[in-house]
Amino acid sequence: MNLGFIGLGAMGSPIARSLLKAGHGVTVYNRTVGRAEELASHGARLAETVADACRFPVVMTMLADDEAVEAIALADGGIMEALPAAGIHVSLSTISTELSRRLTEAHAGKGQSFVSAPVFGRPDAAAAQRLVVVAAGPAAAIARVRGPLEAIGRKLFVIGEDPPAANTLKLAGNFLIVSMLETLGEAFALLRKSGIEPAQFMEIVNGNLIQSPIYENYGKIIAERRFEPAGFKLRLGLKDVRLLLSAAEERSVPMPLASLLRDHLLSAVAAGMGESDWSALAEAASRSAEL
Amino acid sequence: MNLGFIGLGAMGSPIARSLLKAGHGVTVYNRTVGRAEELASHGARLAETVADACRFPVVMTMLADDEAVEAIALADGGIMEALPAAGIHVSLSTISTELSRRLTEAHAGKGQSFVSAPVFGRPDAAAAQRLVVVAAGPAAAIARVRGPLEAIGRKLFVIGEDPPAANTLKLAGNFLIVSMLETLGEAFALLRKSGIEPAQFMEIVNGNLIQSPIYENYGKIIAERRFEPAGFKLRLGLKDVRLLLSAAEERSVPMPLASLLRDHLLSAVAAGMGESDWSALAEAASRSAEL
Amino acid sequence: MNLGFIGLGAMGSPIARSLLKAGHGVTVYNRTVGRAEELASHGARLAETVADACRFPVVMTMLADDEAVEAIALADGGIMEALPAAGIHVSLSTISTELSRRLTEAHAGKGQSFVSAPVFGRPDAAAAQRLVVVAAGPAAAIARVRGPLEAIGRKLFVIGEDPPAANTLKLAGNFLIVSMLETLGEAFALLRKSGIEPAQFMEIVNGNLIQSPIYENYGKIIAERRFEPAGFKLRLGLKDVRLLLSAAEERSVPMPLASLLRDHLLSAVAAGMGESDWSALAEAASRSAEL
Amino acid sequence: MNLGFIGLGAMGSPIARSLLKAGHGVTVYNRTVGRAEELASHGARLAETVADACRFPVVMTMLADDEAVEAIALADGGIMEALPAAGIHVSLSTISTELSRRLTEAHAGKGQSFVSAPVFGRPDAAAAQRLVVVAAGPAAAIARVRGPLEAIGRKLFVIGEDPPAANTLKLAGNFLIVSMLETLGEAFALLRKSGIEPAQFMEIVNGNLIQSPIYENYGKIIAERRFEPAGFKLRLGLKDVRLLLSAAEERSVPMPLASLLRDHLLSAVAAGMGESDWSALAEAASRSAEL
Repeated sequence: MNLGFIGLGAMGSPIARSLLKAGHGVTVYNRTVGRAEELASHGARLAETVADACRFPVVMTMLADDEAVEAIALADGGIMEALPAAGIHVSLSTISTELSRRLTEAHAGKGQSFVSAPVFGRPDAAAAQRLVVVAAGPAAAIARVRGPLEAIGRKLFVIGEDPPAANTLKLAGNFLIVSMLETLGEAFALLRKSGIEPAQFMEIVNGNLIQSPIYENYGKIIAERRFEPAGFKLRLGLKDVRLLLSAAEERSVPMPLASLLRDHLLSAVAAGMGESDWSALAEAASRSAEL
Repeated sequence: MNLGFIGLGAMGSPIARSLLKAGHGVTVYNRTVGRAEELASHGARLAETVADACRFPVVMTMLADDEAVEAIALADGGIMEALPAAGIHVSLSTISTELSRRLTEAHAGKGQSFVSAPVFGRPDAAAAQRLVVVAAGPAAAIARVRGPLEAIGRKLFVIGEDPPAANTLKLAGNFLIVSMLETLGEAFALLRKSGIEPAQFMEIVNGNLIQSPIYENYGKIIAERRFEPAGFKLRLGLKDVRLLLSAAEERSVPMPLASLLRDHLLSAVAAGMGESDWSALAEAASRSAEL
Repeated sequence: MNLGFIGLGAMGSPIARSLLKAGHGVTVYNRTVGRAEELASHGARLAETVADACRFPVVMTMLADDEAVEAIALADGGIMEALPAAGIHVSLSTISTELSRRLTEAHAGKGQSFVSAPVFGRPDAAAAQRLVVVAAGPAAAIARVRGPLEAIGRKLFVIGEDPPAANTLKLAGNFLIVSMLETLGEAFALLRKSGIEPAQFMEIVNGNLIQSPIYENYGKIIAERRFEPAGFKLRLGLKDVRLLLSAAEERSVPMPLASLLRDHLLSAVAAGMGESDWSALAEAASRSAEL
Repeated sequence: MNLGFIGLGAMGSPIARSLLKAGHGVTVYNRTVGRAEELASHGARLAETVADACRFPVVMTMLADDEAVEAIALADGGIMEALPAAGIHVSLSTISTELSRRLTEAHAGKGQSFVSAPVFGRPDAAAAQRLVVVAAGPAAAIARVRGPLEAIGRKLFVIGEDPPAANTLKLAGNFLIVSMLETLGEAFALLRKSGIEPAQFMEIVNGNLIQSPIYENYGKIIAERRFEPAGFKLRLGLKDVRLLLSAAEERSVPMPLASLLRDHLLSAVAAGMGESDWSALAEAASRSAEL
């Protein structure tokens, strides 16, 4: 399939490469040209403008946040204007449910379709085509983009026709992980002050009870305080928790644990750890215990 | 080995049976006689008093809380008085680090040894000899009780010579699980109000990312709101979180997430769910979202 | 002074009347005409459009929230376009620091001035010219609007030249009050369950120690659960706490108490109390204690 | 009236002097003799043992915490044993509702009466006979000790016949104040980072709205970060919040704000501020905002 691809950051680049490997014709656009040129060496065609990347029936976007998606999609000369009628915009970004809803309505107003398909996984998983993709959107549109979506990950879940639902699910999934970071942070602070090695604790409790590779991975990072280089930046984790709280507020759902996470992420940002791995959240507990 | 065993509740009974199966001579004592008689049918001898159960070099206790352990161990006619010099008291109960420390000192004062060996696992794991045992105490004492401790579970971890450390580790382990219950409770409240099935969420997020059998198990219980019968009673979960907060306060470690869990468990008790499974904690989030 | 006045809600109407009483020539605009006509009977002239109300060197706005202010000020045909160069826009609304900053810059870009002057006090205080006004903006602009600002309240504080500072101060002031509501809610829940009358508690503790008329007033409302009619609606209180958290996030300041307030306000909204007085926040504590 | 008085700390000494000034015959006992001798110079007789101070129909105690009261009242040679039948023990200390209940029952078992009469006010208020006294206990006992209780403060409130109620009320009163410290701490952190002087904020918001001398006093201390010397030590504030949470747990009342306060007080203790004034709690907010 010929499609446009916009956004060649740490996630977008390996995803675009996966599409190329799977035999799709990919025309890429990126604000900074260097990244696009690197993709060209893998077979991508280069678009000079957003509109150039929208001359196909499908355009995918993988951008940092609401502001970036809004600027690319809704501004003058953006996707909405350039995409053909009946075109499909597939958004892989982790964005707010509110923007997801606006995009759904705006595209529908132009006879286009919007598919929200956020992904679970870090850049290394993207490079290995190991992402988990959660998609929601009109059934017909999903049917048409199933090939590319399956090409970028190891599993595709289609959860319905309402695009914001995919964003909610993604935000709730991240919440499970960031809650775990806080839990480990507090537990380790107590263990350390009690003379017990976090690594030994993890061996016992995760090794025999929880048995989760995610716990094992983050347990090690936190125990060793190895927050650089960042797999996923703390300030982006804060953004996601903020989006989660907004989604919950729309539904009048209090999430006190999410509020606590937000406060601790904010404290970590104030302490200069915004660019560290989001597992540095665990340091908030250490700091307030004066470890 | 001949040993005494005190406390034949939901956990103590299957543990005593495991010891019998492994060929140990077990003399049991329980406040209510019926439970002891049932054990007799599996080969246990019956003690008529606490002191009767302490005529051996080793006595094990598995009791509900600090009050019960204190009454059996430190009161007149209790273990401390009845156990021979050089005897070993192995406490399997989840008790406070403070009581663990007092028992350590009190037994040492009588030339006896105290081994703290709390266990991870529910009654069904105890019956299947699948418990995970975490022990701390004097090396010589641990060496002598290693046989029985290995008999009751599938894994024994010896974490050092300071008995309260084992209690701290056990409380921190429970904290990981109860944090997860809160996380799922809040996430499910948002998902439900957004029209997304918790079961589908769990399939995606746990099935592909967290991959933990504990999440799977509790995720199901919470999604189906199946809090009866209780595997582990909520009011005992509240007790454990309270003990965790006390252990943390002794070390000047703030644990805001544990505080939040305590408040929600307390709210669940106020709502009459103290005897339900502790995963009913998740209902706090539903209730505050008016689900 | 001749000035325009936009926004004749529960606060705007009495404020506009105060200006008329003080001898100012007031041209009013309101989306729903009825309110404007009522003001006309007190001597106001009627504007048919926003632009009509902006034909003066000064226009004041008193609107419900960011969305309303943005629509009136920044949209096509709005204040920004209609106000003469060198005109002054005085915003009395409780808005976000972020919008306050945008308005500051936008007006400056047109050679106009923006003064942020949020007020403390409920409608009855507005009617009695008893508001407390906190203003920030260019010194020359403040000097020109000092007369009208003094006319609408009993006290005017000028806190500097940076308009968003006035919004921050207003939000922080509201935070003091809503924190007090939470405190009273939790304290009363304990007292009631302990058989102690909240009224007696307030007589002792506020009457002799805290000695605050605000505590006395809200203590009575909460003790008597008299949340209708609303003096200040709970959903507006939630909005203000949200704005506070945003202002704090801009500065990387975690405010865990504000987060807790937000969650409880949200829970109150979920329980259908969004239109009640914001002191109904105190019911969250009663509900979680199953009172 | 002739009475015994036990506990001559920062509060007990000025209270004992007030009793002497009012013409009562006071026999004092203190663990460290120096304090007692100083009282002797004001006319007190010295008791050499606790029992010596209990040879009167009434004994008053003003001690630091539960442990101290328990040791003096319930241990061998303590008040319980020494006080005559029909004697009255008046406890001015801030103790747990649980100990208050135990003392009530223990004294009743000996035909004695227990009156709980905690006080509001710092040492300077005690010296000036400006304390506020809240008493609960058997009506006949209160009638007999009314004179001395009125002598030590400016106001006496009798709130019923159940002694623990007085302790609950006292703890709830302290909760109002410590909540206010947290509120000011968070608000000031935001204001400072926004370039607004806390003192100016207090002038506007407390001066015109809240109008409380307590806010004024603590607002100044916190704004100036003047936490030495301590009027009331932070570690005692932590103790009181812990007692409040225990009292609330007995009644199944979640108090999330109290939990938050406990965590922040604990963090302040970890940071070495346990002996500072409890208003140093406000520093927790500054620290987590990296001010």
